[in-house]
Amino acid sequence: TSIKKIVVLKGDYIGPEIMTAGLAVLDAATKDTTFAYELIDAPFGGDGIDRAGDPLPQATIDVSKQADAVLLSAIGGPKWDNAPRRPEQGLLEIRSKLNLFANIRPTKVTQAQIDRSPLKPEYVENTDFVIVRELTSGAYFGKPRKLEAHQAIDTMYYSEAEVTRIMHQGFKMAQKRNKHVTIVDKSNVLATSKFWRKIANEVGKSYPDVTIDYYYVDAMTMAIMTKPTTFDVVIIPNLFGDILSDEAAQITGSIGQIPSMSVGESGPNLYEPIHGSAPDIAGQGIANPISMVNTVAMMLSESFDEKKIADKITAAVDYIIENHYVTPDMGGTMTTDEVTQKMVDYIKNYESADIK
Amino acid sequence: TSIKKIVVLKGDYIGPEIMTAGLAVLDAATKDTTFAYELIDAPFGGDGIDRAGDPLPQATIDVSKQADAVLLSAIGGPKWDNAPRRPEQGLLEIRSKLNLFANIRPTKVTQAQIDRSPLKPEYVENTDFVIVRELTSGAYFGKPRKLEAHQAIDTMYYSEAEVTRIMHQGFKMAQKRNKHVTIVDKSNVLATSKFWRKIANEVGKSYPDVTIDYYYVDAMTMAIMTKPTTFDVVIIPNLFGDILSDEAAQITGSIGQIPSMSVGESGPNLYEPIHGSAPDIAGQGIANPISMVNTVAMMLSESFDEKKIADKITAAVDYIIENHYVTPDMGGTMTTDEVTQKMVDYIKNYESADIK
Ligand SMILES: CC(C)[C@H](C(=O)O)[C@@H](O)C(=O)O
Ligand SMILES: CC(C)[C@H](C(=O)O)[C@@H](O)C(=O)O
Repeated sequence: TSIKKIVVLKGDYIGPEIMTAGLAVLDAATKDTTFAYELIDAPFGGDGIDRAGDPLPQATIDVSKQADAVLLSAIGGPKWDNAPRRPEQGLLEIRSKLNLFANIRPTKVTQAQIDRSPLKPEYVENTDFVIVRELTSGAYFGKPRKLEAHQAIDTMYYSEAEVTRIMHQGFKMAQKRNKHVTIVDKSNVLATSKFWRKIANEVGKSYPDVTIDYYYVDAMTMAIMTKPTTFDVVIIPNLFGDILSDEAAQITGSIGQIPSMSVGESGPNLYEPIHGSAPDIAGQGIANPISMVNTVAMMLSESFDEKKIADKITAAVDYIIENHYVTPDMGGTMTTDEVTQKMVDYIKNYESADIK
Repeated sequence: TSIKKIVVLKGDYIGPEIMTAGLAVLDAATKDTTFAYELIDAPFGGDGIDRAGDPLPQATIDVSKQADAVLLSAIGGPKWDNAPRRPEQGLLEIRSKLNLFANIRPTKVTQAQIDRSPLKPEYVENTDFVIVRELTSGAYFGKPRKLEAHQAIDTMYYSEAEVTRIMHQGFKMAQKRNKHVTIVDKSNVLATSKFWRKIANEVGKSYPDVTIDYYYVDAMTMAIMTKPTTFDVVIIPNLFGDILSDEAAQITGSIGQIPSMSVGESGPNLYEPIHGSAPDIAGQGIANPISMVNTVAMMLSESFDEKKIADKITAAVDYIIENHYVTPDMGGTMTTDEVTQKMVDYIKNYESADIK
């Protein structure tokens, strides 16, 4: 089998700390397997500005397009607040340049972490849904966008092709899951949302085995808290998806656990934790590595079809959570390195009869 | 003293049911006081379409402008889904025509209702903040707005004057409360949000006694769940305010309790519960009247400076919640009328030594 090329965009502040953890787990989990990979370091985000003068250097785009997967850690932070192009600009641009139109964010509440949720257990128990966020259009990319002295303008835009493809993406995922789709919009006010709902309805007809319901985005913020177990696949425009996926992440107890995957029509997927670069805790060695480790597992499973290796990693994550080998944000006392070492040790012993 | 003119827009589905309750409590609470009022019924929303052919007839605008306050109940519903102008259109328009640029939504978790919250009590205990939502601009009113066959467009727009006045409104409220303001935006992506944050920062300088913090809207959805007690006054653009005020309402346990007030530079305020018209439970006599009763209290206190009468009503609400005289949505078994009667009885006896 060929050697897989993984572009590593190591991130800013806690970004590199958790990337190191993720790569250590990747290394341990792939040892003695047939999966072979090569890591290609490329400058991006704040690190891109520092090393190459821009948050998304052309060379990083080029090498990413050639890769089998792109692994990204959290980026941005106060250091680059006054940069002509901020790190976030690079993030929006790489999504767009790689045509990564769908961002997939799982929201799963496991028994091991249920106590970490701010919600009462009876509300979140058995929650297991996936958010499919449109990622390369909507309010994030619409033109004109103007910041003038006395006024400012953004544009929310959707074309038929853009909405249609994200709908198919979501409905197809639902067919492989529990065959239910929830469409989120603000169609009682916005034209782009009326459009969104209309196309959802049309595309839905090609998936007669999938049931559909519709929520206004404001009502959805309530339903995420009061009936999260009723959702399976949630298809949502870019800006609303940004907002609601953070709320959904929080009900699982810690945003520091959640991976995400961005996919396009062709080319490599991009994998990243959904949280930010947490400048306030950077350099202290206490960043929660779980999100990055889950991100690595997602990459192995989705881009490389290495489900067994991914399962090994997921088992390691369950193991540390169950044994409370976790960082302070999850109520533990361990450092990033200690947590990572526990996972690596677990994986090393995984093949032996004792653990399996 | 003069007779106050209150325009009553009675609403749709459960709207009239809870309006009846609110007016019964208003009647009881103002009996034997010097406060005198006149109710003026006007068609609006679905009721406007049915009675006058439009969700916001010109006559309703005219009479509202002349009023001392406008009392509105929940509007809209499936009956008018295919109307040329839907009920919601009337709501957006009355906000705009009366120039009601600020929508004030209290989020208060009282001891009596803490168990109804989906959040664990240790998270929500002592929550007491106010959302100040910009109401007449932003994504709701920006032009162009286009719904075409193959694409759709909405525009988010803010002028300097619009942002400046809502900031002053919020900062002034903070001065009368706990002197803390939270600015919500998505300034790492949107031009209108960068603009919002910049003006917040400038206006903030005129209020040196008020502290400020800034949240991205996505992060704010998490903070509303994990640290709602840290907020005092939250100043937020129209669309984000729509979304986050529902989330905030939900943490109090029931959106069926929360009043709101919309204010302009001059002219009458408009008071309305923040929830919808709940077509699914309309006609069953089980709608929760608390939101409308709280809305009436808010009107008495804020438009007519009748704090004592408002306090009497608030005491009646506390009384029914404590004694669990509540509708099914709050875990009770009473009808709307029974709950209302309990409040009216309480108020009638309020003046006697026994209760006071
Ligand atoms: C960092 C920011 C630009 C980004 C977004 O808004 O998409 C982030 O919040 C996310 O959700 O990935
Ligand atoms: C009914 C709808 C148009 C309205 C809005 O979006 O403003 C409602 O959700 C609200 O918050 O008052």
